[in-house]
Amino acid sequence: MSSIDEIALSVLENAPAPDEASGSALRDRAANVLRPAGALARLDEVCAWLGSWQRTKTPAVEKPAVVVFVADHGVTTEGVSAYPAEVTVAMLRALNEGVATAAAMSRSVGAELHVVDVGVGDPTGNIAVEPAMSAARFRVCFDAGRDAVANVDADLVIFGEMGIGNTTPAAAVAATLFGGPAEEWTGRGTGVDDETWARKVRAVEAARARIAPDASPMEILREAGGAELAAIAGAMVEARARSIPVLLDGFVVTAAVAPLAVLHAGALDNCLAGHRSPEPGHAMLLDKLGLEPLLDLRMRLGEASGALAALPLVRLAATVVVDVATFEEWGLTR
Amino acid sequence: MSSIDEIALSVLENAPAPDEASGSALRDRAANVLRPAGALARLDEVCAWLGSWQRTKTPAVEKPAVVVFVADHGVTTEGVSAYPAEVTVAMLRALNEGVATAAAMSRSVGAELHVVDVGVGDPTGNIAVEPAMSAARFRVCFDAGRDAVANVDADLVIFGEMGIGNTTPAAAVAATLFGGPAEEWTGRGTGVDDETWARKVRAVEAARARIAPDASPMEILREAGGAELAAIAGAMVEARARSIPVLLDGFVVTAAVAPLAVLHAGALDNCLAGHRSPEPGHAMLLDKLGLEPLLDLRMRLGEASGALAALPLVRLAATVVVDVATFEEWGLTR
Repeated sequence: MSSIDEIALSVLENAPAPDEASGSALRDRAANVLRPAGALARLDEVCAWLGSWQRTKTPAVEKPAVVVFVADHGVTTEGVSAYPAEVTVAMLRALNEGVATAAAMSRSVGAELHVVDVGVGDPTGNIAVEPAMSAARFRVCFDAGRDAVANVDADLVIFGEMGIGNTTPAAAVAATLFGGPAEEWTGRGTGVDDETWARKVRAVEAARARIAPDASPMEILREAGGAELAAIAGAMVEARARSIPVLLDGFVVTAAVAPLAVLHAGALDNCLAGHRSPEPGHAMLLDKLGLEPLLDLRMRLGEASGALAALPLVRLAATVVVDVATFEEWGLTR
Repeated sequence: MSSIDEIALSVLENAPAPDEASGSALRDRAANVLRPAGALARLDEVCAWLGSWQRTKTPAVEKPAVVVFVADHGVTTEGVSAYPAEVTVAMLRALNEGVATAAAMSRSVGAELHVVDVGVGDPTGNIAVEPAMSAARFRVCFDAGRDAVANVDADLVIFGEMGIGNTTPAAAVAATLFGGPAEEWTGRGTGVDDETWARKVRAVEAARARIAPDASPMEILREAGGAELAAIAGAMVEARARSIPVLLDGFVVTAAVAPLAVLHAGALDNCLAGHRSPEPGHAMLLDKLGLEPLLDLRMRLGEASGALAALPLVRLAATVVVDVATFEEWGLTR
């Protein structure tokens, strides 16, 4: 175990259990509001989840925050992306100036967007031949994620990422954590051709081959991940410690938090999956983590876009239980 | 052909084609905004659809309207619902007073809710033994639907319905229009038991057996439908004539507009399916109509709830094309 495994484990072990009293009161209310029991079963369940982590019988999504972590990746030198690494810095600027997809979506759904640069212009190591990060850098990134969540005042958080090349570390982390053929964990990312995909698979295999078979979950993330993945893991730990509900985005975000689930059962209990990406590794990860996504719209962008698309459903889930009268309140018997 | 078939056909034949110039400009823009081409393909396509019916290159969902039609059904005397017919009037009041599901959801997504009573306390005929409506009543309901749409100032409309017993007429209309076993078109509605379901199937079969094999689409709707279904058909025709995009709700709404698609190809071109209900007939209807729903959350309430849940996705679809910079605007080459 590395020191970050120990820190994460200590925080997770001391993190609060969900507020079952609120969850259960909301399930009861959902069964008695003015509609056939179970007619909106999935939304009713989302409402109970939201209330149990917000620790209230009147959950709501009124001040959601989105934190997008941005970084560069040394593995791009292996030719694993359809885009040059320079696009990352341009997208960082587009996010900050409000003209990137995540910025437009955040405005539309009423979420506050925070953009955190954890390594643009300072690429991580090429995971095919060396660790992505030193222990020191890993710690800096992990703590940047924790700080980002500690500093937002939010009733729900979404993590996003942008970093050319980052579906390769995501696949490498997932493949190393869970085993299985690298080909199955490796997808087309931004839409790469067959040759580029074959290079991605080789980079994932090379990264996994480098890593000790008994490496801890956080060591795997340090070795095979990336700076924004490390930050997302830190952000997740902090959200779990603070009992803030988290709506997960796609493959990269899910791969970044997966090591925490291996480290500690229940680490992701405050998470709901926003969507299922067509990246094959994402469906596999969601299965491993027992998460059923709200949306399946073949979105494959990242940037938090899949979670942002699902956010209004979480808001609706709260209102259809909290703000609808019960049969009794309405003077009816069932 | 009945006079309403003739009226509907005349309106539909004179309804405008979509504005392909706007649709095509939006497809071009979507292919050039700051993300990998096709990363949000489904939303890009929704945006082009929205712009082609709003007839603008800058589509948006800023003033959506929801019109919920409410009515009573004579077929409830066959014992086809888990709820007594008296619940309809209570739900009408709950909709009007803002404590029903559709009212809470409309507030959450920023849609204006209109509730139109087309027959509460004045049930239609029992379709198992007689036509649902006389030609005169059918015309009144159809026109009420047209008027409702003519009187809203909306950039997108959603139709909803509430009426205890109304999945039975919906199944009867669909089964008569498209053929096939009544058992396959008949679902559990609000959640009926096996005996009640068997009575529903028999009512659907009896309604179909009564109707002349060569009955026109609108005659089928008059014979086997209900007052709110007739109103929804009228509302749909008016929205098509006015080139207003329509987001369809579940089984009852889809069954109400299906006769128009049989009457005139292209009648529903301005429609997008909001969700897929677990009512088996809904999936079958969506297949027949070539509609792929945005959501699949096992929602089975009606009241417009499925379409309301999908509305934020349509709003997002517009913003992710219109409000995101292109590579060229951002000084990048692809």
